[in-house]
Amino acid sequence: MSKTAIIIDTDPGQDDAVAILTALGSPRLEVIGISAVAGNVPLPLTTQNTRIICEWANRQDVPIHAGCAHPLLRPLVTAEHVHGKTGLDGVPLHSPTMPVQEEHAVDFIIRTLRERAAGTVTLCMLGPLTNLAMAIVRAPDIVGRIKEIVMMGGAYFEGGNITPSAEFNIYVDPDAAATVLGCGAAITMVPLDVTHKATTSPARIAMLRTLPNRAGNLAADIMTSLERLDVQRYGINGAPLHDPAVIAYVLQPSLFSGKRVHVAVEQGSELTLGATPVDWWGVTGKHPNVNYLTEIDAEGFFALLASNLATLP
Amino acid sequence: MSKTAIIIDTDPGQDDAVAILTALGSPRLEVIGISAVAGNVPLPLTTQNTRIICEWANRQDVPIHAGCAHPLLRPLVTAEHVHGKTGLDGVPLHSPTMPVQEEHAVDFIIRTLRERAAGTVTLCMLGPLTNLAMAIVRAPDIVGRIKEIVMMGGAYFEGGNITPSAEFNIYVDPDAAATVLGCGAAITMVPLDVTHKATTSPARIAMLRTLPNRAGNLAADIMTSLERLDVQRYGINGAPLHDPAVIAYVLQPSLFSGKRVHVAVEQGSELTLGATPVDWWGVTGKHPNVNYLTEIDAEGFFALLASNLATLP
Amino acid sequence: MSKTAIIIDTDPGQDDAVAILTALGSPRLEVIGISAVAGNVPLPLTTQNTRIICEWANRQDVPIHAGCAHPLLRPLVTAEHVHGKTGLDGVPLHSPTMPVQEEHAVDFIIRTLRERAAGTVTLCMLGPLTNLAMAIVRAPDIVGRIKEIVMMGGAYFEGGNITPSAEFNIYVDPDAAATVLGCGAAITMVPLDVTHKATTSPARIAMLRTLPNRAGNLAADIMTSLERLDVQRYGINGAPLHDPAVIAYVLQPSLFSGKRVHVAVEQGSELTLGATPVDWWGVTGKHPNVNYLTEIDAEGFFALLASNLATLP
Amino acid sequence: MSKTAIIIDTDPGQDDAVAILTALGSPRLEVIGISAVAGNVPLPLTTQNTRIICEWANRQDVPIHAGCAHPLLRPLVTAEHVHGKTGLDGVPLHSPTMPVQEEHAVDFIIRTLRERAAGTVTLCMLGPLTNLAMAIVRAPDIVGRIKEIVMMGGAYFEGGNITPSAEFNIYVDPDAAATVLGCGAAITMVPLDVTHKATTSPARIAMLRTLPNRAGNLAADIMTSLERLDVQRYGINGAPLHDPAVIAYVLQPSLFSGKRVHVAVEQGSELTLGATPVDWWGVTGKHPNVNYLTEIDAEGFFALLASNLATLP
Repeated sequence: MSKTAIIIDTDPGQDDAVAILTALGSPRLEVIGISAVAGNVPLPLTTQNTRIICEWANRQDVPIHAGCAHPLLRPLVTAEHVHGKTGLDGVPLHSPTMPVQEEHAVDFIIRTLRERAAGTVTLCMLGPLTNLAMAIVRAPDIVGRIKEIVMMGGAYFEGGNITPSAEFNIYVDPDAAATVLGCGAAITMVPLDVTHKATTSPARIAMLRTLPNRAGNLAADIMTSLERLDVQRYGINGAPLHDPAVIAYVLQPSLFSGKRVHVAVEQGSELTLGATPVDWWGVTGKHPNVNYLTEIDAEGFFALLASNLATLP
Repeated sequence: MSKTAIIIDTDPGQDDAVAILTALGSPRLEVIGISAVAGNVPLPLTTQNTRIICEWANRQDVPIHAGCAHPLLRPLVTAEHVHGKTGLDGVPLHSPTMPVQEEHAVDFIIRTLRERAAGTVTLCMLGPLTNLAMAIVRAPDIVGRIKEIVMMGGAYFEGGNITPSAEFNIYVDPDAAATVLGCGAAITMVPLDVTHKATTSPARIAMLRTLPNRAGNLAADIMTSLERLDVQRYGINGAPLHDPAVIAYVLQPSLFSGKRVHVAVEQGSELTLGATPVDWWGVTGKHPNVNYLTEIDAEGFFALLASNLATLP
Repeated sequence: MSKTAIIIDTDPGQDDAVAILTALGSPRLEVIGISAVAGNVPLPLTTQNTRIICEWANRQDVPIHAGCAHPLLRPLVTAEHVHGKTGLDGVPLHSPTMPVQEEHAVDFIIRTLRERAAGTVTLCMLGPLTNLAMAIVRAPDIVGRIKEIVMMGGAYFEGGNITPSAEFNIYVDPDAAATVLGCGAAITMVPLDVTHKATTSPARIAMLRTLPNRAGNLAADIMTSLERLDVQRYGINGAPLHDPAVIAYVLQPSLFSGKRVHVAVEQGSELTLGATPVDWWGVTGKHPNVNYLTEIDAEGFFALLASNLATLP
Repeated sequence: MSKTAIIIDTDPGQDDAVAILTALGSPRLEVIGISAVAGNVPLPLTTQNTRIICEWANRQDVPIHAGCAHPLLRPLVTAEHVHGKTGLDGVPLHSPTMPVQEEHAVDFIIRTLRERAAGTVTLCMLGPLTNLAMAIVRAPDIVGRIKEIVMMGGAYFEGGNITPSAEFNIYVDPDAAATVLGCGAAITMVPLDVTHKATTSPARIAMLRTLPNRAGNLAADIMTSLERLDVQRYGINGAPLHDPAVIAYVLQPSLFSGKRVHVAVEQGSELTLGATPVDWWGVTGKHPNVNYLTEIDAEGFFALLASNLATLP
């Protein structure tokens, strides 16, 4: 079976780590490279964390590219209140030794899309969309060469998680999000509306902890850390695992369902900045630009994570 | 038992009609007067429809006041696509004979609040909030004399019903809504998040139709008309009854539950105009300004409607 | 010769005082009444100052009506940094004894326009446009009965005076300004672009001081106070006399020249709030809504002020 | 005497052509390279026109780099109504043979600033600021290495030239302009407020036409074409020469005067998009970010153009 070629663009981030490990563990994915972006924590940390995560998987061969340190137009907002000062709270961190590529992440994305056969590369976007938007402005020809953009971001039926109106990834760089959503490529959006339907539970975490390898325990530790926060803050029972849902969708889209709709991004108002109004009933007359996921088979999702994490050291 | 004194401000509108009839039928409410506003249909029609509805109830004694023909700042948007050209599609209409008061609705609201003992008058707001906002700008002293504002409007966990972001009443006059939400009075908000949880059904409509009076049949006819639309358009099973929930809350608040939260109104962005982001988790640091209802005992709600409608001719 | 009937709407304000005195001194104007509004200082002070000014002119007979204490939608911004804590810095103030009418300024404007023959009443707007906007929303029929609205406000070729983008009167209530500019009545706008071309000078102030009456000296004192501020702050030679230009235009339009253009109002952006972009070259395709004054015969203007002030006590 | 090293970023454009020729003619400037951007006409044309202009000067050695084909976030707006379909109306055009570099303009700007000694390279920005903003987002380290950014753009005391509020270069990419104005480098801004004070006249054009070379005649032809438009459209006597003022400022700053002020960019409002409010009196409390030019020695300016154009073929 041929592998699906993906680029992961990421700002690790606890759930990013589980997503990257899942992707590296999958025998059905070719991770061409990973590009880091500022988001949950600043760029130097997201770059370093990406290296740590690849080393956890003994995948020092994966090309890692540092990208943009700031959103397109706005000052960087980070999320240490969720992910901790390091971005990877809850697990022991080492000093990584694998290199960062010289090539800028934006160039890496452009070059890869131009070198590979058109329609063969899927972009797995786990953070703010700055790198991809920069690539699109700079080299519009790449849009027609993308197989699919699968992006974690947005909220509609659920409220936001950084403000009442906005999900974090979109809020941090709403201008980049608008550029990506308007680019014309095939896009699947993984919003809070779906990730909040597959939260951690003691049983699900225990399943990972019983894996006889380090990766399972790391994922279990990360989920435990995330869950503790959500229980304390919101009195809810489990933590959503946003970014791994992107990888799960690429591997097994049948776990999900959604609808082709038009999604816009609020860029102008401070109050609702980063909101992603979804034209669910088709009342705006705008052409659908997104496959917007709203349902997930949560048991199947955690089972998929476990089976891929199990292949790692 | 003493009666609760209310002013109904309204833009009938099919569900407004059921709300007004319910209020007029209740032995526990004193309807001081009804003020009409432009909304679902233009002001001449909402004023006339209010007269028709009062005459259905043989309540030619209720003072009816015409108010603002347009929102504070924006051109009027109406909803004939829901309520029909007359605003009261689905029921036979007659030419009303009862008078409209000379006094402008804004003056009526101000005068009533000043004449009545402070803290005794509840404002039941069923349409755009133009009249009340005008009264507050003109006579800020009235705010401290309001017992409670119970207003149908807004959406958060549900999407909007006029655009993906906004509920109709707020969208039509977001500036008036912002003035009211910021005025400092006690406010209970009845958003789509709660009205979509008490929709019509064949059994519920049948219950009203079996009432041995005209009012029950009118209510049943209106609900049938509303339901037909929602079934055709959205493939859902019943129609929400927005405005009657305001009256039901005044009569029996225990049918509902909600949370004290801060709600803002989007006034600046065309995309999200009229959105009402709710700070459900208290992340904005803003003081709660609203009791925001999200849950309803739907069976109890329809039973309450039926019992009050039953007292009418 | 028949008199021109005017209503003055005002927020005194130093230059408002000179404008009101000029109007009261003119044998060719009938001042039907004066409506006060919050602006340069809060409403209680603008109402009191209006009474003081009328008493300076021995015109206790003029009906004075208090209006709106706040802008339509926004918190009040005042200008004590220009006009002093009382609003009438630089002249001795007494406790006025003449009454304030019971009727609200908004009702006064509506009633007067309905009672008088259509097309006979000119509205002289010297402050934020809240009262007039409220009247228009409440009673749209009055628009067709206005002879002309002459309003001090706006800036285009000159920068603003409260922010780099905005003139004070428009900035304080941009929403009211937008309502007025869009209402369809005949409007002449007296912006900073014209008032900055007729500033005080020692000779001009001296001319007023030589008038053998109190009014001339009061006007001279006010101008001296205004001039001191502008010299200190901006190093310019004289102070503009904004509001008197409105009265001068009504009395002698040939002192001015301008152009029929479309003027819009910025309501949405914090940065440019209250800006009044003028479509001077007709590039927007929007129909002219304003006679926008840009030139003034400064010597003729000061001579007109002097000749009218000279008739007062 | 050492030469000043400059990069010209441009969207030719008629006045761009005069600016580039002037720079190439100056013995005191080292034109390191020219980067093209979409603006007056689309990128393929601005790139081609840049080649044509360099060939007019027999300067096939100048590295020309194509940059961004679109603004950062918005659709491209062009100005063929001014510059003609080719962008260089009024002069005969040939098919250029000199190459376009492979390197993207954004990379060229970044590489040059990193290779050259810090503080030695001046950026002459003649069009929308997309390329430079992209470079700053991608490689923030370059900001500290820029000697000065001299940019044609903005309007304050003058109205705009593409809308009543905005000058064309800022309007096309207000987001890029905001990024550049906020970057922290030394910036001199050449707005309409200064360029409208040095317009063409028959005598000034004649002076260029008498130059015994092609460049003088080309400049004269371009100015004649520009002037014809402004005379027809606005009834004014001459045409402003916006972009050449940037080169003139770099060569002889004493021809100009201005003030260090804070300048912002309107990005949020459709009405005033691209406006550049200038805090001329320091009322906003914001630190000056720009040397804003308002005065020019027009005779000296045209003499400077002539003397530099005279050195060309």
